[in-house]
Parts: sequence; structure tokens; C-alpha cells
Amino acid sequence: MSFENDLEKLKTLLGTISDLHAAAALLDWDMRTCMAPGSIESRAFQLATLEEVAHAKSVSSELGHLIDRLDARSASLDPDSDDARLIGKVRREFERERRTPSSWVRRNAEACSRANTAWECAREEQSFRRFAPHLQELLELKFEYLSFFEPYAHPCDPLLDRFDEGATCADLDRVFSRLKKEQTAILRSALKKTKPDLSFFDGRYPASKQIALTEQVLSRMGYDWKHGRQDRSVHPFTTSIGLYDVRVTTKVFPGKPFSALFSSVHEGGHALYEQGIDKKYARTPLGDGASFSMHESQSRLWENLVARSPEFWEFWYPRVRKLYASALEGVSMERFLAALNLAEPSPIRVEADELTYNLHIILRYELEKALLERRLKVADLADAWNCGMKELLGIEVRSDTEGVLQDVHWAMGEFGYFPSYAMGNVISAQLWEAALKENPEIPQEIAAGNYAPLREWLRTRIHVYGAKYSTSELLKIATGKACADPAPYLRMLKRKYA
Amino acid sequence: MSFENDLEKLKTLLGTISDLHAAAALLDWDMRTCMAPGSIESRAFQLATLEEVAHAKSVSSELGHLIDRLDARSASLDPDSDDARLIGKVRREFERERRTPSSWVRRNAEACSRANTAWECAREEQSFRRFAPHLQELLELKFEYLSFFEPYAHPCDPLLDRFDEGATCADLDRVFSRLKKEQTAILRSALKKTKPDLSFFDGRYPASKQIALTEQVLSRMGYDWKHGRQDRSVHPFTTSIGLYDVRVTTKVFPGKPFSALFSSVHEGGHALYEQGIDKKYARTPLGDGASFSMHESQSRLWENLVARSPEFWEFWYPRVRKLYASALEGVSMERFLAALNLAEPSPIRVEADELTYNLHIILRYELEKALLERRLKVADLADAWNCGMKELLGIEVRSDTEGVLQDVHWAMGEFGYFPSYAMGNVISAQLWEAALKENPEIPQEIAAGNYAPLREWLRTRIHVYGAKYSTSELLKIATGKACADPAPYLRMLKRKYA
Repeated sequence: MSFENDLEKLKTLLGTISDLHAAAALLDWDMRTCMAPGSIESRAFQLATLEEVAHAKSVSSELGHLIDRLDARSASLDPDSDDARLIGKVRREFERERRTPSSWVRRNAEACSRANTAWECAREEQSFRRFAPHLQELLELKFEYLSFFEPYAHPCDPLLDRFDEGATCADLDRVFSRLKKEQTAILRSALKKTKPDLSFFDGRYPASKQIALTEQVLSRMGYDWKHGRQDRSVHPFTTSIGLYDVRVTTKVFPGKPFSALFSSVHEGGHALYEQGIDKKYARTPLGDGASFSMHESQSRLWENLVARSPEFWEFWYPRVRKLYASALEGVSMERFLAALNLAEPSPIRVEADELTYNLHIILRYELEKALLERRLKVADLADAWNCGMKELLGIEVRSDTEGVLQDVHWAMGEFGYFPSYAMGNVISAQLWEAALKENPEIPQEIAAGNYAPLREWLRTRIHVYGAKYSTSELLKIATGKACADPAPYLRMLKRKYA
Repeated sequence: MSFENDLEKLKTLLGTISDLHAAAALLDWDMRTCMAPGSIESRAFQLATLEEVAHAKSVSSELGHLIDRLDARSASLDPDSDDARLIGKVRREFERERRTPSSWVRRNAEACSRANTAWECAREEQSFRRFAPHLQELLELKFEYLSFFEPYAHPCDPLLDRFDEGATCADLDRVFSRLKKEQTAILRSALKKTKPDLSFFDGRYPASKQIALTEQVLSRMGYDWKHGRQDRSVHPFTTSIGLYDVRVTTKVFPGKPFSALFSSVHEGGHALYEQGIDKKYARTPLGDGASFSMHESQSRLWENLVARSPEFWEFWYPRVRKLYASALEGVSMERFLAALNLAEPSPIRVEADELTYNLHIILRYELEKALLERRLKVADLADAWNCGMKELLGIEVRSDTEGVLQDVHWAMGEFGYFPSYAMGNVISAQLWEAALKENPEIPQEIAAGNYAPLREWLRTRIHVYGAKYSTSELLKIATGKACADPAPYLRMLKRKYA
């Protein structure tokens, strides 16, 4: 069998696996946007089956033999070629997957589906106790998972690796301890400022207008509606049903009339990344983001560095003022901007400002570490959460729904996911500084409603490569520096809030 | 390995196959209701992959061995038990599937997806020529398929068998020749009557009200919204994403203000069947309708025998008159009913009345036969269609979109499907006569808006059994007579139209 034949066979097999994942993505999207509630149990079976069938192919001896044969003969390839990178990535994923038994994958997928439903009920009942047994089950499944990856430096490491290859607890501890120290200091001084008048948020902002506005903004960002759509869901998300179908969702939040906009811009940032990946990587593992941190850097960059900037609103505020004429009557742009950029401790992560956001993440990270190091019991998690919120942000949590139950991640078994949000913030500011250094006209283009220069900079430095390069390789390409550096983010915060 | 263990293994494997089909059903539903147009090519790959993976499992030696072992030891089972019936059905399907190579399944699925898109374009361009090469490709794939089933009495037979086990061209010829002769005679005499005044169809019937009405009627029929939903699509359809998620679609037709209602009732009839199947058959091949004919008998029974009856409108007409107050002002119930039951040749099958409907089917059946017997070329199909419409119904077809391109079936490779519509009509009247014989109060319950007695009669005689029994076995249970009999349908037509 020739090298080319084997490579073709590999790509066919990867295409099948990719299609199965795409089908699972649609089942999940549908479950969260369309599906009637009575179908939840059967959908859990269907999702578990797709995961199991895909996983069986990902660890098949057929794939193993192909990788061995290709590896042995890939010395002649340019190590930076797409094919060499693909083979390398597939080999690393194969080795990780092979350690994970199919039966664990099925039990985990089923438990996640049940936990997801329980999480929604628990939120309605405002009761962590309702959800705790499911979280316990998921945590035990995680311990079982960790046993497949012994030895490791820290139990977080094999989990972090799934979201950002090579990320370690030790690295995060270094970045997070600096963020925690400096951000709490900036927060203390910011809280001394006079609070802006937010009363105009209570005016009339019809949901249909909020949605129409998100669609206009997404269109200007360059979101491709021919290859996607926007719906509403309990928790906004982006999903790719293959590279040609990248969907976003948003949420209208009563009393927070610009929440839908920021959600859509955030998810739009994720979607631009997926839609910008070179289509030659479709139906292969390279047709994906480099890491969750890099993905989050895109959404946070658009949400915070773009959509909270004076330049962004220079274009949009006159339009928004027409749209919500009665609510915004007499509200100056300055007052409006101050309200959107208010730094104020609040209980909900997705509504948190740039200054407090990372502190929300650091709380979750510390709790996950404590659970995984067996220093904290699931039964005590809600109390630990509430203490942490008090200590880090000075907040009294009023209910579990506004506290430990606010995020879907743990209910989906996604331990190790949260840190990528904070790392995404860090990277977003690194990329923003680099983009502006190369093209100082980006802010004035944004003020004219033209996002093409920024989008194209991101596309050509980050998006097109898909998962060919790692986070640090992409940082090297885009910024010249091959690691995450908290300095630009902290500089931005100080400029804005101190 | 014990019999029980093998049976358990069989059910696990069938559950996996069933989940893969459910995922494919969702991908298809989404393609026709939600998906952005740019995703069509990648969706074709995904659908083809799911079909291929499911098919590979359906013909796997693992399944073959299980069936052999179970068959050899199933003598001790009651032949009418669920398990014995399941094993028998799985064996028959296995033998049919095993003859069909996986590569054919993939090529066929990909060609169908492409043909479907081309069909939609061709309809917009009103040009059969645009679609013809795709139909040619699908027909060649059918000839290839037929070669796997040689010898057969007629090339239609292996295709008919997929939709109604055991149905043959010879049987259909007998039923259809009688229908054709008697229905054209009834039509000739009906056409001599004065045509009712249809001008009130031109009034104001807002689409949102039409949809709201369909939802009310579906609710009263007993459609379970907790396990389904209704959307709009180009061609109305029902799909089951497993037994716990049965979805319908409908279509608002400009100028035909009750078309959406009849579409929803029709699809609702299919949905009640699926929702009424005993849940113990979920994730097995018994969790399905007995045949396409039996399925169609349910939709046609609700659409025609119920929703076109004076009793049905005794309940609904006062409500509809309030809903469309201006359009229906001064329109008596008699005039309204006469308009809904007008027998008049028209070009579109889905809009055809009870009297002409079967003639539309007979045309398609005769054309399919001619294509499969190689007496007719695809290039000549549009002309043959137009000649047939002229001859059978006296209609001049104005465009291919209103002619040979009107139905999606051929674009989905579904040759042999159409006859089940006419057989469904025939069976619907058989069941209706039997139901009324057992419970003569059904019409007056319908007049009171109470469909429970009819629905429960159908549920207990037909629905609950799923695919455990064949069409003729179910006819025996429900009517005492084990074959399709055109007499009740023709009696009904004569009573109504002659």
C-alpha cells in the first residue's frame, strides 16, 4: 500500500468520524433550541450512541495501523506541511482516545445527558441538592478517567489537556495568581469611583428589536448567514455542524437590554473563527479551533475589546438610539458607555464585566482543583462557592441558581474548561495589541462600522490555520511571542478602570 | 451464550442502528426546516456517512451470527410473541440488506442529496431538464439495486417490497385497474354537477391564523406536543427521531386557505400512528409503522374521512368563521362544505380531492413502471407526464413545477413509494367502515370535537402493534378481512360524488 493510498484511507476514516461528530453536534443543538421536553431520554441514548460509534472508530485498530504505517514513512514530508501536521495530531489524539474505554465514553455521555436535565430542573427549583448526586456521578467518572492517564503531575493536567494541548495546572497557577492579585487591586480602586446612572436600562427594549439588532451586528462583523443561523437558548453557545454550518444562539435577559447583543457578539467571535478556517481542513481534525483558549480569545476580543469600545458605539449608538427611542431619550453617549463598562461585582459570570470576569473563573478553577484533589466534597460545593464569591467579589449569593448552578459546564462533564475563559481574555488583549501595532487604523475603521481590517487580520493570523498549530505557535505567528502573557490584559484594565 | 444473552445483544445492536437512523432523521428534518442553504453539500456527506455506518452494522457478521443463533433456538418461543416477531423481522431485513453493498448505499445517499437540491432549483427555474440528469443517475442506481435482487417477477417488486413487505406489481395492477375504471366513471358524472362558488377562498386568511388553527386541530386530535413539534417546509412531512420525538411540518399555500389545515391533519394522522406505537418497541425495528400503505391509511383517514366530513365542520366551522370573520361573512356551512369537497381535476397531487387523487397516483405508478421496464426514457418523462395528465384528468400542465417536478419522492430516490398513497386511501375506507360498525357513535363524537373514540379504536387495532404485524395481518385484526379491498373506498366515493 502506497503512502498516498494510506493517507487517502486515513482521510476517509477521519471524514466518517468527523461526520458522526457533526451529527452529534446537531442533536445537541436541536436539544437546546428545538426539541420538545419529552424527548430528552431518547435523545440521551442517541447522543451516547453517536459518541460511542465515533469513539470506537477513533480507537480502531484500522486507524492505529494506518497511523503506524504513515508515521514510519512520513520522514520525507515537510514537518510543517498540512499532511505531516495532520498525521501528528491524529497520532496524539489516537493515543489519548485509546486510553479511554468505549464503555466509559458511553456511561459518561449518558450521565451527562441526565445531569443536564437535572441541572435545568435544579435551576428551576433553585436547589443545588437536586443536582448534587448527578455532579457526584460525573466527578466519579472523572476520577475513573484520570486513572487511565496515570501518572500525571496534577489531576487537573489530563483534563486541561483536552481543552488546550499541553496546558498544565502549574502554568495556570502562575498566570492566575498574578491576575488574582492585580485584578483585585484594580477592582478595589475602581469601586471608589462614582457609579454611573443605570436607570435607562429599565426602559422599553422589546425582545424582537434586541434580536434584530444582534442580527445587524452579526452581519456587519461578517458572520456568514448562508452557512449558519442564530436561535435563542437558555445558555448562549456556538456549534459547528461541520465547517459549512456554524450556528450561534443568544439570550434575551430581562432588565439587561444589551445582554443579547454582547452574547451574540461573543458567539459571533467564535463563529468567525470557525467560518474562517480554511475549508481544505473540513472533515479532518485540523478543521477545528487550535484550543479552547484561542477560541475564547476570539469571542472575548469581539465582545470586550471591540463591542465595549467608544469606537464601536460611535457607529452603533445613533442607530440604537433610534431603535429604542423612548428608553434612550436624553441619554448621552458618555453615560451610555459608562453604563456598559461599569465594573461592579455581580453574581453571574456571563454578565460579568471585564474587570471581575477572571475572578469568577479563578473561583471555579480553585473549586475544581479542590474537588479533584479530594480536598472538597460535592455536598460542600455550594457553601464553598458562596464563601468564595464573598471573599473574591464581596458578593452574597442569593440562590443556587444565581450561584453554583449558573453554568452548564459541570453538568456537561466539562471539568478543566473554565480556565480557557480567563486565558482567552489574556490572549485577546495580546492579539489586540499586536493587531493595532500592525494596523493602527483598526479603531477608526471600527468607528466607521467596518470590521473587515480586524477580521482579516485575525483570519490570516489565526483562523485559516484551524488546528494545524498549537496556541503558542499561533501566538508566535500573530504576536511574535510564543506564550500567553497577562501584561497586555492588565495594562488594558488599568487604563480603563484604575 | 444463552438465548437470553444473545437476545439482549441483539437488542443492544438494534438500538445502536435505530439511534443512527434517528440521527439521520434529525439531519434530514433540519435540512428541510432549519438549515442555511450553504450547508447542503456537507449535509449530504453527513447523511451519507450515517446511512453507511448504519448499513454496515445492519449487514455485519456480528448481526448475522446473532440471528443464526437465535433462529436456531427460537422454536421454543410462541411464534406470535414480540421476541419471535422481532427475530423474524430482523432476519428478513438482514437478508435484504446483505444483498445491498455499502458502497451502493453511500453513492445512492449522496446522489439523493444532490438530486434533492437540484430538484429545488429545477422547481424554481420551472425546468425538468435541470433535474433530468439527476433523475437519470438515481434511476441507474435503481437498476443496479434491482440487479442485487434477481430473479423477480417484475422490476417493481423489489422496490415495492421496501415500502410494503410482500406487495407486488401484479396485486397493484388488479386493484388499480378497478380504481382507474370506476373512479374515472364517477368523475365523469361528478363533473356534470354545478360547480360550487369558491370566491370566498380569495378573502383574507393570514398565515399566522392558519398556523394557529392547525395547532388547535392537532391538539384536539391528540397530537402530543411534549413529544413533537410542527414547523413549515416546502413539502409537508412527518418524521420520527425515535418514538419519543415525532415531528410534523405543514405548508401555507397562497390562495388555498385550508391547505395548511389539511396538510397538518394529514401529517397529524401519520404522527398519531407513530406516537401510538407501544413504547416497548422503541429502538427496535418493531417501533415503526407496519408499512407505508398502512401509514398512509392513517393520514388519509384523518384528512379525508374525518376532516372533510360535515361532522368535523359542525364543530370547527363556527370557530373558523370567527377566525376569518371578513373572508367567511355570509358563507353558509353548506357552501363551505361543498367547496372543500369539490371534485375537480387539478394539476397538484397534494391538493387533489378524494375523487381524483388516486388517478394522480396511477399516473405516477404507470410512469414508474414504464421507466423500470425501460419502455420510457427519463428525457421523455415530462412529455409522458403531460400526456398522462391530459388523458386521465383532462388537464393541460402549465409548467414542469406544476407537473413532473411537483413531488419530492423521485428526488429522494423513492421509486415504489407512490402506490402506497392509493393503497392508503383504499385501506382508510376499510378501517373507517369497520370502526363505525363497532362504534356507530364516532361521527357524533367528531361533531362534538371529540376524536378520542376514533383515535383509541385506531390505536388499539393498529398503532400499538407497530411493525409487529404485516398490513394484511392488521387488516385481519381491525376489519376481519386480511386483504386490501377497494369496495369500501369506491362505495364512499359513489355516495359522495355520483
